[in-house]
Amino acid sequence: MILDKDQKILIVGLGLIGGSYAKGLTKKGYDVSAIDINKTAIDYALKNGIIARGADFADPALVGEADIVIFALYPHVFVQWIKDNQQLFKSGAIITDVTGVKSCIVYDIQAMLRDDVEFIAAHPMAGKEVYGVENSDEGIFRQANYIVVPTDRNTFEAIEICKAIGTTLDFARISSLPPMAHDEMIGFVSQLTHCIAICLMTCSKSDHLVDYTGDSFRDLTRIARINENMWSELFMLNKDALLRQMEKFMNEFEVFHEMLRNDDVEGMKAKMRLSTEKRELFNKPKGEEKV
Amino acid sequence: MILDKDQKILIVGLGLIGGSYAKGLTKKGYDVSAIDINKTAIDYALKNGIIARGADFADPALVGEADIVIFALYPHVFVQWIKDNQQLFKSGAIITDVTGVKSCIVYDIQAMLRDDVEFIAAHPMAGKEVYGVENSDEGIFRQANYIVVPTDRNTFEAIEICKAIGTTLDFARISSLPPMAHDEMIGFVSQLTHCIAICLMTCSKSDHLVDYTGDSFRDLTRIARINENMWSELFMLNKDALLRQMEKFMNEFEVFHEMLRNDDVEGMKAKMRLSTEKRELFNKPKGEEKV
Repeated sequence: MILDKDQKILIVGLGLIGGSYAKGLTKKGYDVSAIDINKTAIDYALKNGIIARGADFADPALVGEADIVIFALYPHVFVQWIKDNQQLFKSGAIITDVTGVKSCIVYDIQAMLRDDVEFIAAHPMAGKEVYGVENSDEGIFRQANYIVVPTDRNTFEAIEICKAIGTTLDFARISSLPPMAHDEMIGFVSQLTHCIAICLMTCSKSDHLVDYTGDSFRDLTRIARINENMWSELFMLNKDALLRQMEKFMNEFEVFHEMLRNDDVEGMKAKMRLSTEKRELFNKPKGEEKV
Repeated sequence: MILDKDQKILIVGLGLIGGSYAKGLTKKGYDVSAIDINKTAIDYALKNGIIARGADFADPALVGEADIVIFALYPHVFVQWIKDNQQLFKSGAIITDVTGVKSCIVYDIQAMLRDDVEFIAAHPMAGKEVYGVENSDEGIFRQANYIVVPTDRNTFEAIEICKAIGTTLDFARISSLPPMAHDEMIGFVSQLTHCIAICLMTCSKSDHLVDYTGDSFRDLTRIARINENMWSELFMLNKDALLRQMEKFMNEFEVFHEMLRNDDVEGMKAKMRLSTEKRELFNKPKGEEKV
């Protein structure tokens, strides 16, 4: 079984990411349906040709016909949905997701899932600071990473199908990481950065500084606009890894603070040279990043 | 005396900012000359029509004819230059600058300057992570802030001319702040953000994470590419204000770390709501900021 256009794809959770998946897959010619408890989202998607069929409940007909089911829900809602409705899955169906943390859910779901259905985890590293299917946009995947997060229980076939979803959605880079390594990485590049942005935004009575704010401050606080329900849940689900990353950053920041306090100009310069050198590696190809 | 095209403008220090001033003022029809010890920079600017006349030393003819002299040098070089060469200024000349910190230099310069010459400080809040007149671009001012930093000794006339330079260069917002308030603000919106970016970049052996890095990490570390000589000097010159801002941020970050450690989900959500609400104020007009 590979990804082909005879297969029926069901998306459960039609928000920003679910909606963007639906748009991208529909535009590529796939048969896409969706389930969301929010009837407005389903109606919007039907009316705009984003999905072929939809329901605002766990419709046995939609679930039962789906060869591939993609979950784009909050982690705890997602796990509960599987518990409540897994009897509806078609035998042989491949289940995947878009959840931002993995260790805490992948093993649980694989352990409880029916033997004739396979769960292969994926993490599309893309988003926006706005919500809902109305703001969905398959273009957000084009410069983004798509990470397949397999365990020892996954089959080669399911991993390939999961990668094919990423390819079809035009992700820039598709890679693979085990759950623990994924969560450690996410704790650093995504969750720590959000913690920093939040604290930079809240640490000062800075409202009067709007008139003087340049690109630096705006860049560092762009992600301070944050969905508190989703992110507090993701932080809690990756608590240990995130605490470690926060401590690593705090230690480094204190070292720099000490250098400044002690007039250690050479020490500060060495840190700046190192940061400059390391940042070079992260440059996007010419033209994709402002300099 | 107001800014008009009969006046001769001299730029001392033809790097990225000096070069961008030169390009912008020349394009607007002003008579612009430049002095830089780097002959290559002067030759490049002459060849490309960025300046009308130039020298690689403190040429008495160029300095003596200038009605307006704009210093775009490192702070300590700038102060020394004035000490060494102020006898060359034309009587009645207006001197201004582009230095990123103010208290530590403005009063000193005003105190030592000849009585028939006036220094009015300015800070164009614009830059790039690249250097030199070859990379200069007057377009960097178009969405940026220009801050005039007058003291009690400045005349209305000089303040107006200084503002007119900002207007001519098409800065988005032109405002005015006293030296102390300016430095406190800069400590927060500019220097603290650079310290954070440096430490985020250096705190982890993150080189292997390049493949997984999304926009969040890239945004927060863009300014980690940093000119260590200039910024270590700016940090030292604004040391007390910057230390205070760093401590404020560290305290906030520790509070958030404690909340996560103690499973205080409601506390984290409250911080996220506050950061979201505060960040709204800093949004650029629609279309200027990616969302």
